[in-house]
Amino acid sequence: MGRWQPDARGRLERAALELYVERGFERTSVAEIAERAGLTERTFFRHYADKREVLFAGSSVLQEALVGAVAGAPESVTALDAVAAALGAAAAVLQERQEHARRRQSVIDANTELQERELIKLASLSTALAGALRQRGVDDASAGLAAEVGIAIFKIAFRLWVDRTDDRELSEFIGQSFAGLKAVTADG
Amino acid sequence: MGRWQPDARGRLERAALELYVERGFERTSVAEIAERAGLTERTFFRHYADKREVLFAGSSVLQEALVGAVAGAPESVTALDAVAAALGAAAAVLQERQEHARRRQSVIDANTELQERELIKLASLSTALAGALRQRGVDDASAGLAAEVGIAIFKIAFRLWVDRTDDRELSEFIGQSFAGLKAVTADG
Repeated sequence: MGRWQPDARGRLERAALELYVERGFERTSVAEIAERAGLTERTFFRHYADKREVLFAGSSVLQEALVGAVAGAPESVTALDAVAAALGAAAAVLQERQEHARRRQSVIDANTELQERELIKLASLSTALAGALRQRGVDDASAGLAAEVGIAIFKIAFRLWVDRTDDRELSEFIGQSFAGLKAVTADG
Repeated sequence: MGRWQPDARGRLERAALELYVERGFERTSVAEIAERAGLTERTFFRHYADKREVLFAGSSVLQEALVGAVAGAPESVTALDAVAAALGAAAAVLQERQEHARRRQSVIDANTELQERELIKLASLSTALAGALRQRGVDDASAGLAAEVGIAIFKIAFRLWVDRTDDRELSEFIGQSFAGLKAVTADG
């Protein structure tokens, strides 16, 4: 194998996820991931700080999708519509990688430490989303509320999508959760 | 001092919080907390597993308040109204101890590890709230959504309350955030 390793990052990620699913996150070593990917540990550490980061490196892509969609939403739309646009953009990213998303979630569901890390990730996405809303001139409290509610909807929709038994898309579950929210708040 | 130590738990808690505020959570030891409280380390460990637990022991009281209020809400009320009743009960618990709540939050705000622990606490409260709603016959998805949205509202309202410059009560901020949610969802 030459020094140039095409798609080393993707290969490492796929190998890691396979191993985490097969034998669990705790019982997988970086050496095993590198071996499965046909690469060296040195190459692994060129791409990821540790074996946990393989599961969380994608969060910057999600954050960019969320923030970009809020920034790009027409000025006339409400804060919640901007959040809906943001969730739509994040859903498109995840839909592209649906098998990956599903397997990743099964690994996270099996490990408390990873679940905690995932909560922290979601909290940062909420903070980023609120920041993007404030940039549009939304006041602090409304921005925080719309962002928190958006992430709440995202969590619920994501869980339903991961657990689905048909081929419905994530965006559909997000739409459904938004409708559920409106129904639930209109009732009160 | 005799073997019987009146309100040892409360004294330890107050001493810990004082020290965390004065010199920071990391730089405070259990020995110092016990000394400030006029008690022994042995007594500390009879009440708390470690110095972090002093800050999180109250979460079971909050959880009982949330779950109890949902269980006790009239059958006729909507899921979101049951959540509103739950947040009202939690607010009453915190309002009673407003100075404690404010100082505790300042300690948490200064420490990333504690912030993460707080996120985990809020996620467990959300899970408990969703469970209590399901017990009322609310379907899975709506229970999860109402609970997540409730905790989102609670987070926003709690932050506004902690940062307030007047003597408004937490329940007022919760009502305001609920109204904000309704306004935000009705707009869309």
